[in-house]
Amino acid sequence: MKRVFNFSPGPAMLPGAVLQRAQAELLDWQGSGMSVMEVSHRGTAFIEFAARSEKTLRGLLAVPDSYKVLFLQGGATLQFAAVPLNLAPAAATVDYVVTGNWGEKAVSEAKRYANVNVAAESSATKFTSIPDPKTWKVTKGAPYLHYTPNETVFGVEFHDVPSVSDAPLVADMSSTLLSRPVDVSRFGVIYAGAQKNIGPAGLVIVIVREDLLGRARKETPGTIDYKTQAGNDSMWNTPPTLSWYFAGLVFDWLVEQGGLAAMAKVNARKAAKLYAAIDASDFYANPVEKSARSWMNVPFTLADPELDKAFLQESKAAGLTNLKGHRVVGGMRASLYNAMPEAGVDALVAFMADFEKRRG
Amino acid sequence: MKRVFNFSPGPAMLPGAVLQRAQAELLDWQGSGMSVMEVSHRGTAFIEFAARSEKTLRGLLAVPDSYKVLFLQGGATLQFAAVPLNLAPAAATVDYVVTGNWGEKAVSEAKRYANVNVAAESSATKFTSIPDPKTWKVTKGAPYLHYTPNETVFGVEFHDVPSVSDAPLVADMSSTLLSRPVDVSRFGVIYAGAQKNIGPAGLVIVIVREDLLGRARKETPGTIDYKTQAGNDSMWNTPPTLSWYFAGLVFDWLVEQGGLAAMAKVNARKAAKLYAAIDASDFYANPVEKSARSWMNVPFTLADPELDKAFLQESKAAGLTNLKGHRVVGGMRASLYNAMPEAGVDALVAFMADFEKRRG
Repeated sequence: MKRVFNFSPGPAMLPGAVLQRAQAELLDWQGSGMSVMEVSHRGTAFIEFAARSEKTLRGLLAVPDSYKVLFLQGGATLQFAAVPLNLAPAAATVDYVVTGNWGEKAVSEAKRYANVNVAAESSATKFTSIPDPKTWKVTKGAPYLHYTPNETVFGVEFHDVPSVSDAPLVADMSSTLLSRPVDVSRFGVIYAGAQKNIGPAGLVIVIVREDLLGRARKETPGTIDYKTQAGNDSMWNTPPTLSWYFAGLVFDWLVEQGGLAAMAKVNARKAAKLYAAIDASDFYANPVEKSARSWMNVPFTLADPELDKAFLQESKAAGLTNLKGHRVVGGMRASLYNAMPEAGVDALVAFMADFEKRRG
Repeated sequence: MKRVFNFSPGPAMLPGAVLQRAQAELLDWQGSGMSVMEVSHRGTAFIEFAARSEKTLRGLLAVPDSYKVLFLQGGATLQFAAVPLNLAPAAATVDYVVTGNWGEKAVSEAKRYANVNVAAESSATKFTSIPDPKTWKVTKGAPYLHYTPNETVFGVEFHDVPSVSDAPLVADMSSTLLSRPVDVSRFGVIYAGAQKNIGPAGLVIVIVREDLLGRARKETPGTIDYKTQAGNDSMWNTPPTLSWYFAGLVFDWLVEQGGLAAMAKVNARKAAKLYAAIDASDFYANPVEKSARSWMNVPFTLADPELDKAFLQESKAAGLTNLKGHRVVGGMRASLYNAMPEAGVDALVAFMADFEKRRG
């Protein structure tokens, strides 16, 4: 069995050490004679595990005590509905900043529940830039301002938290949470689907400031009512125990790596190496404004799109998989989440140079 | 490593063969050098797996072509909201039959979205019986009639599909689906959380008659809009790929066991053995009307509740775990889902006889 370097945008690579540990204890968790997925979420063992995992996550992100951390189902996409249902009265106008297709999807879902004001968007640059926060047209008294700190398809990332509105800031951090430290106190709500930096698909983490609890509309399903779930330690209904378990192992692994400051250094270096290789070449190109380039998702095109197929076939044969770009952007995309070792980026850069030499 | 007989009501025991197979391929699925939880749900490998798993499930249940099968998140509890959102206009009165606490929870969530008529309920017998369908007070023209074929806490099960209303029948089959054949054509919607007979928590299966698609209210989140998900093969958003994978392995295992007719025989025999042991004893008792006794969940009390603790400790030491009853009912509860081997029931019956002899 040879593991590959998997550049999938998500569901994405997980740390090999996490998978090995899960494999070893898959039929017998904590000497119970049961798999972790076979135990009741209301049993002592799982409750202790859940509490410990939350504590570890809080430590990693330095989550203030005035925030609740929830482990829910439905992915970020269900949060696109949950955010307005939990935070916005029916007649309210809510603010969204759109820097890619995930932001567009968030707007589309929010429109079911509220008037949406797009305070800024960057479609004019084909989502290769971030609109200057000074130009954002925010709504006075909006229940929240929503944005997407990292857009996976276009590879655009906010490297600072914008400060433009008095409204609570809500962020879909699906593809960036845990990749670097973040000042949680700047946000009203942070949510993140697990399948990039956290664990398997089927889990979404929500970090919500306590003063925002209790505003949910009557028609909010109980499973996504922040107050209901916060009051029940995310166990108002059966949580996705298996995905939660993997997330807990990933949190432990991050602590072993030195925490998020250490991850940020490695992630910045990984991204810098790949962008440097792209920029040094006339054969490869990345269209994103340099200040907005993502650490997590690096789209790049080949000078001759006719070579895309050969690039994908040969890279796969070299153990570098899932490099195909999103159909909207074309070309290639390398996703460099936490679990991608620096050696994987080195191997990709070396392959790209070799491919260019042979075929460019 | 010694595996135990795990009588947990859910998340519950899974077949050992399924866990062993998953363990073997956890780091390298189909020779890809990736775990199944690391591959994109939009890649060929997962799409093929998903289609095959649906086909196997359709074969097991003989699902008519006029039904869609969905693999979603949020558990049965989110379906408590999804059902009225998908099927009932805002001013409608919907019918519910309540034979236990899951039915009560379904009603409570439905009240967010519709007028609920409880057509029948059995709280007067402390949920130890099923009201005669002839006495149900159904609403003329109701968008649907909802019931819970098996109630896990009280151990009450419908052994026939009721036929009392022209409205589409909607069933929460979380704790009975796949335990025996069922005539899907009798239902408008069947849904089931995975964590009893299907796989790990974090997946819910919805089987919906096609003519019921397209009635969802505007405020239905896209992730639980039946038509939206049916039109996208349950991949409108990222599905819970890891739980789905386990479900697929369980479906294959069920085919190997001979399908649902074979499972029904074993399940009927397992339940009969345990009820016979309870009924033959003055020390153990089950309060449920005989015609309504569940095959899946068997609550029983000890003549002296002071002995509950000893029973639980000693049974656990004997490798029979999670027998504690629900706090509402007290005493013990043995859940006998598909993955519980007949040998587990034999061991439990033998332990009960021995315990009674020593302590009764």
